[in-house]
Amino acid sequence: MFLDKLDWRYAAKKMDPSKPADEAKVAQIVEAIRMTPTSSGLQPFHLFVIRNKELRAKLKAASYGQEQVTDGSHLLVFAAYDNYDDARIDAVVEHHAAERPGTREALDAYYTRLKSLYLSRDAHENFEHAARQVYIALGFALAAAAELEVDSTPMEGFDPAQFDAILGLEDKGLKSVVALVLGTRDVEGDWLAALKKVRKPAYEMVTDLN
Amino acid sequence: MFLDKLDWRYAAKKMDPSKPADEAKVAQIVEAIRMTPTSSGLQPFHLFVIRNKELRAKLKAASYGQEQVTDGSHLLVFAAYDNYDDARIDAVVEHHAAERPGTREALDAYYTRLKSLYLSRDAHENFEHAARQVYIALGFALAAAAELEVDSTPMEGFDPAQFDAILGLEDKGLKSVVALVLGTRDVEGDWLAALKKVRKPAYEMVTDLN
Repeated sequence: MFLDKLDWRYAAKKMDPSKPADEAKVAQIVEAIRMTPTSSGLQPFHLFVIRNKELRAKLKAASYGQEQVTDGSHLLVFAAYDNYDDARIDAVVEHHAAERPGTREALDAYYTRLKSLYLSRDAHENFEHAARQVYIALGFALAAAAELEVDSTPMEGFDPAQFDAILGLEDKGLKSVVALVLGTRDVEGDWLAALKKVRKPAYEMVTDLN
Repeated sequence: MFLDKLDWRYAAKKMDPSKPADEAKVAQIVEAIRMTPTSSGLQPFHLFVIRNKELRAKLKAASYGQEQVTDGSHLLVFAAYDNYDDARIDAVVEHHAAERPGTREALDAYYTRLKSLYLSRDAHENFEHAARQVYIALGFALAAAAELEVDSTPMEGFDPAQFDAILGLEDKGLKSVVALVLGTRDVEGDWLAALKKVRKPAYEMVTDLN
């Protein structure tokens, strides 16, 4: 149960390089990311699953030297669309029409309306919209990892421009948004592992309107 | 298992008003939202759990009349900080220092650095950062709802300015970002319930770098 692991999980600050995450579990985490719901079904991002050590060493240098990037076994980099365009939206329509016979007319109407809204916005606004969808997928990945007891470290602390250059994202119309290290916590070496989890109390962050 | 429900869950387009979501399960979903990890532990958002029917009717009018808003039993509205400021960050430091004795010095150093970065950015950039954190929580909420077999409909399709006005968010330094309806799918009445789930194939959205 994911819900039983809310306290077990934490953002590991030190991982044990001798204990890689199990590949079958990583595959399940990637599948949860693929199945993540996104606005209008656009799935406006690409996922890089990086095992290569030399590549991770380069990305560590662009992540303020955070050791988890290489002490973990997998670095997941989520890269969002830099913008929406006709081709990207048309591909969604074609895919849905092929998978759901009889829906093309409704799909055309829906996505024509969506295009008139999205394609009139500037690239930055569309990128921000796509980046938000990435964070739903990050939530699904964190939930999946917790359920499977795979340790993880979500990371915003890197230089996106350097990540984009290292991974060649500009040519693909992508921009790096957030990363997630998978591996195994080093309980002895992690100052955070022993500390109590801290969250705002419900009375502070939740308001019931009945 | 959340991972067994990736195909079961979908964004319900029609809910059955005679079948409210179970309150004990709603409490678990809210708890998952509260426990969501966020950047630097800021938890920069507030959650409104709205059962009140008159209020939901007003919010439906600001949501292009989407019937789920009132056919469901609970409307969750996620509202992000409109900006970061000294008081909001200091509150995080105080809370963590109180819960984790002996960490104040390290906390002061970390959050002083964070302030120098965040408080020099404009309000919109900080709001966008906070909004992204909301989407991790949306992911956790969707995962929790799926695990508990509570139906849900994530919604970006509303007028945030109207939501903000109806909920009085401006005075609280908050802006509505996304909503989530909880309730029970009306299988007979929902055109989407019978359709195959469509997601991009892994070979299209995932790249392994080994």
